Amino acid sequence: MKTVNWILILVTGLSLLIASAGFCGDIENLSGASRGCLACHRNMTPNIYENWAQSRMARVTPAEAQEKPALERRVSFESVPDGLSNVVVGCAECHTMNPDKHKDTFNHQGARVHTVVTPSDCAACHPVEREQYSKNLMAEAYGNLQDNPVYADLMKAANGPLKFADMALSQGVPDDLTNGDSCLFCHGTHLSVEKMETRDTDMGPMDFPSISGWPNQGVGRINPDGSKGSCSACHARHTFAIEMARKPYTCSECHKGPDVPAYKVYEVSKHGNIFNSMGHGGDWDFEAVPWTIGRDFTAPTCAACHISTLVGPNGRPRAERTHQMNDRLAWRIFGPVYAHAHPKEADTTIIKNKDGQPLPTALDATPAAQYLISKKEQQKRTRTMKGVCQSCHTGGWVDGHFERFEHTIETTNHQTKAATRIMLKAWREKAVDQADGLFNGPLERKWVEQWLFYANSTRFASAMGGADYGAFANGRWHESKNPHDMLEFLKIRLQRAGSE
Amino acid sequence: MKTVNWILILVTGLSLLIASAGFCGDIENLSGASRGCLACHRNMTPNIYENWAQSRMARVTPAEAQEKPALERRVSFESVPDGLSNVVVGCAECHTMNPDKHKDTFNHQGARVHTVVTPSDCAACHPVEREQYSKNLMAEAYGNLQDNPVYADLMKAANGPLKFADMALSQGVPDDLTNGDSCLFCHGTHLSVEKMETRDTDMGPMDFPSISGWPNQGVGRINPDGSKGSCSACHARHTFAIEMARKPYTCSECHKGPDVPAYKVYEVSKHGNIFNSMGHGGDWDFEAVPWTIGRDFTAPTCAACHISTLVGPNGRPRAERTHQMNDRLAWRIFGPVYAHAHPKEADTTIIKNKDGQPLPTALDATPAAQYLISKKEQQKRTRTMKGVCQSCHTGGWVDGHFERFEHTIETTNHQTKAATRIMLKAWREKAVDQADGLFNGPLERKWVEQWLFYANSTRFASAMGGADYGAFANGRWHESKNPHDMLEFLKIRLQRAGSE
Amino acid sequence: MKTVNWILILVTGLSLLIASAGFCGDIENLSGASRGCLACHRNMTPNIYENWAQSRMARVTPAEAQEKPALERRVSFESVPDGLSNVVVGCAECHTMNPDKHKDTFNHQGARVHTVVTPSDCAACHPVEREQYSKNLMAEAYGNLQDNPVYADLMKAANGPLKFADMALSQGVPDDLTNGDSCLFCHGTHLSVEKMETRDTDMGPMDFPSISGWPNQGVGRINPDGSKGSCSACHARHTFAIEMARKPYTCSECHKGPDVPAYKVYEVSKHGNIFNSMGHGGDWDFEAVPWTIGRDFTAPTCAACHISTLVGPNGRPRAERTHQMNDRLAWRIFGPVYAHAHPKEADTTIIKNKDGQPLPTALDATPAAQYLISKKEQQKRTRTMKGVCQSCHTGGWVDGHFERFEHTIETTNHQTKAATRIMLKAWREKAVDQADGLFNGPLERKWVEQWLFYANSTRFASAMGGADYGAFANGRWHESKNPHDMLEFLKIRLQRAGSE
Repeated sequence: MKTVNWILILVTGLSLLIASAGFCGDIENLSGASRGCLACHRNMTPNIYENWAQSRMARVTPAEAQEKPALERRVSFESVPDGLSNVVVGCAECHTMNPDKHKDTFNHQGARVHTVVTPSDCAACHPVEREQYSKNLMAEAYGNLQDNPVYADLMKAANGPLKFADMALSQGVPDDLTNGDSCLFCHGTHLSVEKMETRDTDMGPMDFPSISGWPNQGVGRINPDGSKGSCSACHARHTFAIEMARKPYTCSECHKGPDVPAYKVYEVSKHGNIFNSMGHGGDWDFEAVPWTIGRDFTAPTCAACHISTLVGPNGRPRAERTHQMNDRLAWRIFGPVYAHAHPKEADTTIIKNKDGQPLPTALDATPAAQYLISKKEQQKRTRTMKGVCQSCHTGGWVDGHFERFEHTIETTNHQTKAATRIMLKAWREKAVDQADGLFNGPLERKWVEQWLFYANSTRFASAMGGADYGAFANGRWHESKNPHDMLEFLKIRLQRAGSE
Repeated sequence: MKTVNWILILVTGLSLLIASAGFCGDIENLSGASRGCLACHRNMTPNIYENWAQSRMARVTPAEAQEKPALERRVSFESVPDGLSNVVVGCAECHTMNPDKHKDTFNHQGARVHTVVTPSDCAACHPVEREQYSKNLMAEAYGNLQDNPVYADLMKAANGPLKFADMALSQGVPDDLTNGDSCLFCHGTHLSVEKMETRDTDMGPMDFPSISGWPNQGVGRINPDGSKGSCSACHARHTFAIEMARKPYTCSECHKGPDVPAYKVYEVSKHGNIFNSMGHGGDWDFEAVPWTIGRDFTAPTCAACHISTLVGPNGRPRAERTHQMNDRLAWRIFGPVYAHAHPKEADTTIIKNKDGQPLPTALDATPAAQYLISKKEQQKRTRTMKGVCQSCHTGGWVDGHFERFEHTIETTNHQTKAATRIMLKAWREKAVDQADGLFNGPLERKWVEQWLFYANSTRFASAMGGADYGAFANGRWHESKNPHDMLEFLKIRLQRAGSE
Repeated sequence: MKTVNWILILVTGLSLLIASAGFCGDIENLSGASRGCLACHRNMTPNIYENWAQSRMARVTPAEAQEKPALERRVSFESVPDGLSNVVVGCAECHTMNPDKHKDTFNHQGARVHTVVTPSDCAACHPVEREQYSKNLMAEAYGNLQDNPVYADLMKAANGPLKFADMALSQGVPDDLTNGDSCLFCHGTHLSVEKMETRDTDMGPMDFPSISGWPNQGVGRINPDGSKGSCSACHARHTFAIEMARKPYTCSECHKGPDVPAYKVYEVSKHGNIFNSMGHGGDWDFEAVPWTIGRDFTAPTCAACHISTLVGPNGRPRAERTHQMNDRLAWRIFGPVYAHAHPKEADTTIIKNKDGQPLPTALDATPAAQYLISKKEQQKRTRTMKGVCQSCHTGGWVDGHFERFEHTIETTNHQTKAATRIMLKAWREKAVDQADGLFNGPLERKWVEQWLFYANSTRFASAMGGADYGAFANGRWHESKNPHDMLEFLKIRLQRAGSE
């Protein structure tokens, strides 16, 4: 439907007239293009306008941002990007950036607008952060799941439609909407522009691209410009507030379930207690860059240990900002069957274990060592993390903590091995049918929970001091109980086979 | 015990004297009757006094409240209720309202006081809200559970006392105290006045009504005046703060368990993150009426989407206050076996499915369509809800969200059907004993969790963007695993039957 | 390694010089010894310094603290402890207290410093609190677990390394690091000084004691001076903030798991809702001593009901501070198989039930009465607790609440009895092997969850109004379902035995 709507033209024209006459006069240095957007959108989507108007983007030009001393700087470009020298960052600056690369670019009131702002767009001002981020497993979260046949099978085992017939359950391949509502909600969907469609709006009918997989803000989203990830996964919506990214609630969006209970563990840790008890009344400053230990905050949030630029009260740097969070991570403690040294590359689909499976360890726990970082690199990363700890803890405390943590990595892997042996026995004895992938049958599903829930929970608890998450809250109690249930299952199956 | 206690009379007399001499002089326009109450209760139950004294009830007379412009008004009566024209709303105004209708009315220091303030009492000033509220399923939450034989059975299956004898478990009917501590804690108890009893108080022995089912603040409570519900379920205690009702913690009191994990999902949603990160420091105004999007708050709480009067920053209304929350709800996504179009009436005991069961769908998922709203009404309600969403999101975003959500309603029903077929097969094969209701045996209990926990969780996650609650946190992973466990159970039972 | 490091001496000397010249001049009345500590540690562990510098310890001398009126006093000594009359409480005051009693005392820059500050150290100023605390079960939490053979078995069943061989699972004794990361994280580890070791520090290599079990802040920690407990379990780190101890997050560190879901229940209770909704914006005063109901706070946190000095707005005392929390606790509702009257002594290893087991009840629920408080003492404690409730609730409300709670204690014990009978039957029929303790086999582990998770959860929900935690969130639904699963297990085992 391409009908020109005269009322629309009239309203838009009037709006633009008002806009150019200073309607957005409270925002200084706003580009004419962004004024045009706001002429309508200030009223159409008022919260988007208000968020942005209160944000740093609406108040500081990139050029001003770059003039700050290095430690206080929030942008990382070398020279001011084209067209951004004298304007604040408004609607048009992001939503019309790189229009030719965006398959979601469409003609909107005379401008070439795109819906989805991507890391490549943000990189105009934040190239270092974008580059660092691309080295995280998160940046590859879509492919690491979808393009690894083993993990794609796990996704099917969770999301596929079930059918019960002839005393058997079968499971179909899950559709995109279901995956996007489940695993890919956090991992990121594949956004693809399928067609233009006409929508009724308050301004009359208008044409917009129809994007499958949208909306989504997953960390490894495949974008219409070919880039990966979504900065708004953490820097939410149009406030882009560092305050929000530094609070643990942001991380909790994806890191709270039984497979990755990081936030749950943090909540009941001493750190979480101090944050919850002392960090809400306005006494902590979540916006300061750099972030001063003891002055701005007195207990770490996720960001403090993993990302932020930290200085002591004397201004001495204690940790350098990184958006490659694995800079400080020696181990990968959740996701795969066994915890192991961190992978060298963000793309884990390249990994093959000794048995040819696309997994970082074999089922007997042997690591696929050539794809994983060395012991030396692990020690270096641990040293970096310990440096953060020592802002508040003495060396003996920190060493004692890490000794316990690394021991827990070993013991959780040990318990997983016991469970795995039961499953392997069941396969050997043909007590269960192995034909249908690693995860499909009832015994295999118990085995998955052994490592995906119980070992993970125990390790997170150990990493952050999460008490019961290493004991009765999906912790060691369940690590020890689950193999008993698996064994009972196996005995029943073997007996049934024997009696048939 | 009706003994007159001279010390009591003396103390009360003195108190009243002090009271009339201006003891409560800091509260203007307080009725003499309420002054009398406070003479003692200010010290006896100090927190009740302080809560009330800081509340709007103690500061604004109903007449003043009505003079506000329509959008700012918090009362909904046509003409000022009798006796409330020139006084603020104190103890006596509520606790002596409609004394003849209240079976809990008793003589207390010369006044006819009742313990339980009910929606009918509150309706003196808030008749529209009371009327709207009565159309919610919540208002009928007591009867919808207790008076529906199928659901009464579920309550028994949870709460009834177990007996193990002769290698069998039987379960008795649960007593009222247990039900009141379990299901009816939220659904509401039946308050009935059984007798008067004498209690020792700091003022000496006094007579009070003994009310069975008390205390309780459940949403469908059956009150001593015959009314249903409890305004203080959400408008807690004597502060009556709109601030509290608008915060999600209020809803979490009943909507957090595995059967209705709304708050859990909200917490890890983008909305919940923004509320938690940005809404605590005093920057958000939770008291303003109307509630201005982008100014007073920047992400919705439960109330914003389901209840409150919302306006844009330009003052233009975007949503009208409703206490009939289903105005914006096309689907009923939790409670019954299958999600379905919302019921027409709040009282669901009138519903019969095609098989004669008092359920909104048959076990094969066929809806009892004549009791449920039409497709057209569903579309209208969805449009209303989408209007709220579009304060912050563009049309494509909102449509994409709802497409995914409605697809999830279908797929969760599909998975439940697979589980139901296993149970029906077990009944047909007499592998389990169906005599004792839908929910009593070990297989039936697994089936209950299929829809009551896993399908519900998945749908809530879809509705609000709850990530892992649609995956590994009681989500699709469990939806797919549970039928395998059910099938294994059935196979074992059939084999046992075969070998006996 | 005892090498003297010249650079170290130089830096330290310079630091001390600067320190004595007024470097810490912003802290008045700081001892010379503490100035010496800060000379380095202000920069080495900046957050520790900042925490302390902002705390009351850095601002008030013990002598000044004692001069407060009794109700406002935060110290409880009779006469000012030696050496503390004119100085604030700095590093040295605690970390060099009682050096001869501390096996962790070591020579550090010329001072005899110890790492672990213990309740005996804190008792210099807080002797009453220390004495009261020692009467809690918590103070004996290490021994009550580790030294009770039955509970030591439970710890093994959770934490021991599993081995699968010959179609059987066996479990070894867990090592100390694992226990310290699991049960003992909250219960407390046994800290023992094993040797001195040399560490690289920013000041060069230095010698420190190596303490096994460290770090740990468990409530029953065995300290290097022989004392038990850790004040910093609740009074966290170097802020020692009463604000933090009064907030429920502190208690949640250990009281959140399925075995003790106190905080989870509080969160969704009306009390928790009011705290979360109204207590974060700075309107509540968490630092005032005494704590004024209705002025400083309007809903109780854990501390309000169990610990703090409470007064009414008129200043009238309503509850006296106690660090013996069981002063107000008639029942022990979590931990053992059945809820029972509170033990008389904190050390529960002395208890024997009628069958000679070290448990407060027999498996048939008969209490080991001579070790438990009397009915009369229970009534006294309940009266004390009700006195707190009546600040906000009338007598009928409070009595109704406690009637329901005590009924729930009975009914949860009843359901546990049904589950226990199934297990006893299995033992009698030799369907499971009882040789290996009460908790080791797959049936026993189901039984453990009956009381440790489901009965506990139901009772906590009842105690605080936790709604779904008494129903579907590990509540009565699971209490009733679990015995069905246990029975099914037993039938399968018996049939297998029959067919072998």
